[in-house]
Amino acid sequence: MASKGYSVRNLQFVLYELLDVISLTEEGYFSNHSRENFDIMLDVAEDIAEKYLRPFLKEGDRNPPQVVSGRVKVHPSLHKYYNAFSSAGLLASTFDEKLGGSQVPKTVYSATDFIVGNAHNGYEMFTSLSVGAARLIVSFGSDELISTYATRILSGKWTATMCLTEPQAGSALSAITTSATHQPGGSYKVKGQKVFISAGDHDITENIVHLVLARIKGYPEGTKGISLFAVPVKRLKNENELLHNDVTSVSVYHKMGQRSTPAMQLEFGGQDDCVGYLVGEPGKGLTYMFQMMNTARLGIGLAGSYIASSAYYTSLNYATERYQGRNKRSPQDAMGQTQIINHPDVRRMLLLQKAITEGCLALVMQCYYYEDLLKVCTASERVKYSDLLELLTPVAKTYGAEMGMVSVSNGLQVLGGYGYTEDFALEQLLRDVRIMSIYEGTTGIQSQALLGRQIPANNNRSFDLWIEEVSKVIKRASESEELSPYGTWLTAEISELQRTTQHLLDIHTKGLDEIFLSDANLFMELFGIVCVAWQWLNQGVVANRSIKEAISPADRIFYLSKLETMRFFFHYELRKTKGLHERLRDNTVLTVRTDEEILV
Amino acid sequence: MASKGYSVRNLQFVLYELLDVISLTEEGYFSNHSRENFDIMLDVAEDIAEKYLRPFLKEGDRNPPQVVSGRVKVHPSLHKYYNAFSSAGLLASTFDEKLGGSQVPKTVYSATDFIVGNAHNGYEMFTSLSVGAARLIVSFGSDELISTYATRILSGKWTATMCLTEPQAGSALSAITTSATHQPGGSYKVKGQKVFISAGDHDITENIVHLVLARIKGYPEGTKGISLFAVPVKRLKNENELLHNDVTSVSVYHKMGQRSTPAMQLEFGGQDDCVGYLVGEPGKGLTYMFQMMNTARLGIGLAGSYIASSAYYTSLNYATERYQGRNKRSPQDAMGQTQIINHPDVRRMLLLQKAITEGCLALVMQCYYYEDLLKVCTASERVKYSDLLELLTPVAKTYGAEMGMVSVSNGLQVLGGYGYTEDFALEQLLRDVRIMSIYEGTTGIQSQALLGRQIPANNNRSFDLWIEEVSKVIKRASESEELSPYGTWLTAEISELQRTTQHLLDIHTKGLDEIFLSDANLFMELFGIVCVAWQWLNQGVVANRSIKEAISPADRIFYLSKLETMRFFFHYELRKTKGLHERLRDNTVLTVRTDEEILV
Repeated sequence: MASKGYSVRNLQFVLYELLDVISLTEEGYFSNHSRENFDIMLDVAEDIAEKYLRPFLKEGDRNPPQVVSGRVKVHPSLHKYYNAFSSAGLLASTFDEKLGGSQVPKTVYSATDFIVGNAHNGYEMFTSLSVGAARLIVSFGSDELISTYATRILSGKWTATMCLTEPQAGSALSAITTSATHQPGGSYKVKGQKVFISAGDHDITENIVHLVLARIKGYPEGTKGISLFAVPVKRLKNENELLHNDVTSVSVYHKMGQRSTPAMQLEFGGQDDCVGYLVGEPGKGLTYMFQMMNTARLGIGLAGSYIASSAYYTSLNYATERYQGRNKRSPQDAMGQTQIINHPDVRRMLLLQKAITEGCLALVMQCYYYEDLLKVCTASERVKYSDLLELLTPVAKTYGAEMGMVSVSNGLQVLGGYGYTEDFALEQLLRDVRIMSIYEGTTGIQSQALLGRQIPANNNRSFDLWIEEVSKVIKRASESEELSPYGTWLTAEISELQRTTQHLLDIHTKGLDEIFLSDANLFMELFGIVCVAWQWLNQGVVANRSIKEAISPADRIFYLSKLETMRFFFHYELRKTKGLHERLRDNTVLTVRTDEEILV
Repeated sequence: MASKGYSVRNLQFVLYELLDVISLTEEGYFSNHSRENFDIMLDVAEDIAEKYLRPFLKEGDRNPPQVVSGRVKVHPSLHKYYNAFSSAGLLASTFDEKLGGSQVPKTVYSATDFIVGNAHNGYEMFTSLSVGAARLIVSFGSDELISTYATRILSGKWTATMCLTEPQAGSALSAITTSATHQPGGSYKVKGQKVFISAGDHDITENIVHLVLARIKGYPEGTKGISLFAVPVKRLKNENELLHNDVTSVSVYHKMGQRSTPAMQLEFGGQDDCVGYLVGEPGKGLTYMFQMMNTARLGIGLAGSYIASSAYYTSLNYATERYQGRNKRSPQDAMGQTQIINHPDVRRMLLLQKAITEGCLALVMQCYYYEDLLKVCTASERVKYSDLLELLTPVAKTYGAEMGMVSVSNGLQVLGGYGYTEDFALEQLLRDVRIMSIYEGTTGIQSQALLGRQIPANNNRSFDLWIEEVSKVIKRASESEELSPYGTWLTAEISELQRTTQHLLDIHTKGLDEIFLSDANLFMELFGIVCVAWQWLNQGVVANRSIKEAISPADRIFYLSKLETMRFFFHYELRKTKGLHERLRDNTVLTVRTDEEILV
């Protein structure tokens, strides 16, 4: 397992024991499925990962895509992966059967995504962008757009991207200037530049569909004037013939990591001949795009976990094989040295990695589970699951991004000097994971969204619903002698969190919004830790129940490990809330601009 | 200033206002000096940095040294820098006049080192290794070794390295197997492999002197059998002729960062013709090497700060020039957007960077000041300064390494997607700084040294002396209305730290040493934060006094900024001690090996 970088056993634990995904298949949308074909999907993903992805992780990093005669040339293995993933039906798997999909729960699809991304986090982005873009067209586009674009994307024939950022407007999307001019026949002429477009150019498929935010001429400034367009690199002249559509690759960014994924600066309509097709209604582009952004945000949380998982198994493996130093109570080699895993400090770093990796995965999967429940729940439950999903999406994204980085860095540290060299994957994984706190909205943006929008919305309805969810787990914990102290502990943490949240909301009520949001990042850190504690307690409850049954020796170790890691999370990570509460309740304002600039 | 990456004003503040370095020149060892020539040294360092270093920072990273015909070829700019630095007299500046030095205080030399390293942290290592090695030979070597090796190194004619690590023994130096066989005439034949030897090969000088730890045949296993040897790559046949000395470059490591500094795997005596010269007495090699290690450890603390400083000024500059998003109370551009420095979250990240960078610098400089005091103090004060230096060295090293990384990563975040690209220096600085927690003893090793050796030594004498030092600053703070609350705050923190330390020492007293040291890393984190709070309070005291005098507008802003950053450190960073105390007083043992391995 170690050489793979992930634990299928743990994915199965999350799917079948923690979340009970099988119950989703009882009736309705997912009823064609069973554990058997979910497990086959995991098998297929494993095959693809080990055949087309992991062997090329390093190579893709060392040989980043190049612009050759105005188009980007990528490593040939990417083409093979993309074909394999779509041919196996994975690309379309979560879509309706009538679109060529197989109506698989997102939790299960995400488990396959975890495997794929674990083996090659750069290539994974190509498939996940296509899935997200197709979903957007299916949700909001006309039948014609769906049949022209979504079906070709889902079949693997074309790929897709999202084009939001412009040079003058980074996170501030309201300031975009790319324009769209209505033309006879209903299409639009698109003109403008977009930057940081991941998978924005390549040579693995004959065409790429860019989903572009642009402002229709005459529409107002700000977010309400923004519309969404499907802009192919080549437009269809007829069913079989493609014409150049005036989309140009201006340059490819040279990056710290994620080097196998070309991040492009693109020009649309440099020759005034770029045709775009409106998706949905005009002026609603940003609202639509948020659907894709939300999917992408959960994908980042997942990425934080699967990259951290790859790092964890590399360092666990190393710590088990490397003998160095002495430890009287542990096995020794001929020189009297012990495996470094027996040094408490190394074990602490490994437990930290595992606690972050698996805690984050559980939280992200909980979100996907709410998405799946939305497909099968009653009308009265819809608001609840939708609220919970909205509330937890920025948290899962940010925890994966920020703590994924911490986890990988600890993994590198386990290897010492070797971890810093290119001989091991750790240094690359650290470079790769560093982008996650910037992708799809920075940690700052996510934190503003959490504290500024999700928490106060509807009189804190989502927050209260979430506390109910946590309380259910605490109740289950209270039923066992081993876990009830941890349930009590989490109860106290929730109560402290409520107090701090109320303190902040009182500032909001007073209209002091800049101060209210000034430490939103710290609130995010706090909320993330408590959310993952909730997920660890839940894992502890399941493990504690299962370990008492007649189980295999391997399962016994698996559950023991879960329980130990849960304890680790509480005794080490959950301690961090204390300082955060103190800071967040401290009324000394230090980061809101004064009249004079004093930073030197 | 921003384009340079450092603040000379701040270096002068530390030297002349915070530490009163001028008082060192009143009589004795440093009496040939004055503020005037210290300032000239800073000027010279600035010239060298901007001419020979900063322009080549990126280039050195993109074109790492290559092995050409068995020897390493480095970028030609390195040669120019090395010449300039030694010709200016900086290389030898801290050495005795009789050795060609100028008896400059280490505090002042380190300020020049800060400037140089800030401009190019890779090239700086070549000079600092030479200085450290020459110091070692001067301290412990025979007159012949000094005149043959130290003088040539100090003149810039040859460079030097330290060779400790071996493939089978990373941090566990007691397990080294490189051997030395006594030969007629008094020299030794050296045989063995060393890994991760920084600056271990290059083509900038005609010769390199390796200081090698090896075991003389017949000496015992363990640390007491280790001796120190000077092993030149070319040995002197006579005064002017050099012979090949059988030192071979096996390979150069490919690293995440620090790419302009070749890290070598070296073979000594592959043809049984490698001659080494014993430094000092046999069996004392490790004790001697610790002198160089200690110097190098402070150098790492300094590096954490100067790399963080480079990142800070890059992101401060960016945040001042980049307009994005809206903020009603701040200046706006034509599109209604504001400089991103006006967003509280960006300002928080900048203040965090500044608080770490300047707090760390003050702590490292405090250590160098103790070293300087050892040169001029009375015999009765020697124990005190020596104790304080020993206690704080691992702390300054680790704070710089760990928090330097946090600081640079926050700097990258300020730039968003641009920070992740090679267009800005941030991504390289992050890769460069990541090694610091591994160089010269990992954070784990430093933490064991702090809690396991420095704290309990001589019945906690060093710890008590340090508390006296902190108390002096608290007393000064209590004399002003503005700072007395922070003095009271730090008093409470010290008392909590004493309680936690006593809790740990009680475990030590019970003989449970593995448990005692199991969370040494967290104790280090705690102690580092409190040390830097001490340094910030000290800076606050000085700034608060000076701001009340008739000063220039620029100085007023400088002191305001100091005071604001001090407050930031207390209100944000010092809060973190709460969770650390809780963890360290928690008796739940989770990282000490149990009978069964359960990590999966």
